Amino acid sequence: MPDTNLRRPRGRPRDKHDGRRDEIVDIAAKLFAARGYHATSISDLTEATGLHRGGLYHYIESKENLLFLIHERFITPLLEEAHAIEARGEPPDVRLRALGHALMRDIATYHDQVTVFLHEWRSVATATKDAERAQRVREARRDFEAVIGRTLRAGVEQGHFKISEPQLAVLGFLGMINYSYQWLKAGHDFDVDTVADAFCGFFLDGIRAR
Amino acid sequence: MPDTNLRRPRGRPRDKHDGRRDEIVDIAAKLFAARGYHATSISDLTEATGLHRGGLYHYIESKENLLFLIHERFITPLLEEAHAIEARGEPPDVRLRALGHALMRDIATYHDQVTVFLHEWRSVATATKDAERAQRVREARRDFEAVIGRTLRAGVEQGHFKISEPQLAVLGFLGMINYSYQWLKAGHDFDVDTVADAFCGFFLDGIRAR
Repeated sequence: MPDTNLRRPRGRPRDKHDGRRDEIVDIAAKLFAARGYHATSISDLTEATGLHRGGLYHYIESKENLLFLIHERFITPLLEEAHAIEARGEPPDVRLRALGHALMRDIATYHDQVTVFLHEWRSVATATKDAERAQRVREARRDFEAVIGRTLRAGVEQGHFKISEPQLAVLGFLGMINYSYQWLKAGHDFDVDTVADAFCGFFLDGIRAR
Repeated sequence: MPDTNLRRPRGRPRDKHDGRRDEIVDIAAKLFAARGYHATSISDLTEATGLHRGGLYHYIESKENLLFLIHERFITPLLEEAHAIEARGEPPDVRLRALGHALMRDIATYHDQVTVFLHEWRSVATATKDAERAQRVREARRDFEAVIGRTLRAGVEQGHFKISEPQLAVLGFLGMINYSYQWLKAGHDFDVDTVADAFCGFFLDGIRAR
């Protein structure tokens, strides 16, 4: 399949092929999240998608490539929203709350995809032959971290926040929200926006300059 | 093998068999963390441990049981330390910091074991036939959460903390620290106590009554 189908440039309109591929990626994410990536075979994937082997490969290229596609499913909308939030130019505390809510909703919406990525990424990163693709994953993750970092820095510069270890503040904020993938669908009854509100509240009160 | 060897009651002195089993559990945790539980075979385990199949099973009982043993490796010392910290009766903020440091160090010390548990627990919990053992895992996790919950409650009762959603405060505090397993050994250069200090600082300032 042509490379351009896998690497849709930003802004290119999504076509029917993209939509069908998203469906396949989501089915794969569900299987991988439940059984693990290695324990899920190509036969499991053809059975679950109703595709023949050839049809499946037409959409996914390879089983490994599915992991990159799974990552793109949740990181692309998250980055788009994060940059849109940044562009609104709101005060740093309002912006951080908006980013926290966006991340929390992304994790809830793409729970399987996030789970698979967090559990499998390390082994993909070391085993993949597609170094360029792996690099783009790292860049996407740094991109989101950088949005948080700029927000915290703006708050410090404007005298709203007091932070002694900016990188640890980024990691702490992201960790508190990211870790929710472990319990979000496991019997806890919280609405995602309630969780995001509470977590952003602890964090903002924790870094507020006084 | 007798059941009692697998389920060492608290306080029973550790013998040579326990020590050798810990070594085997740690080797398995390393393999599972790198390749995934399902992708690691019993042959991989016999090769890595230098044991024959029979010898391996003597120590681990079953491959699935290894996951329970891996959990015990990091939860037993953590709970012992958490209860010792509680017994000291220090003020809630001092206690919370001590618990944060203990958790952070436990994650760093048993990084493979924590990784394997967080990645594989869900599928074990649904697939295991040993419901009693799975229940003990849940109880151990709730035990640690309860120590954090009591500490926060004590802080509220004594007027030090102000918390509107106590359960979310427990989840936020634990998530911020637990998520560090994702980046702790992946190129970040922080000393674990520096991380714990910073995270406990954000959190304590975030819940401090004013």
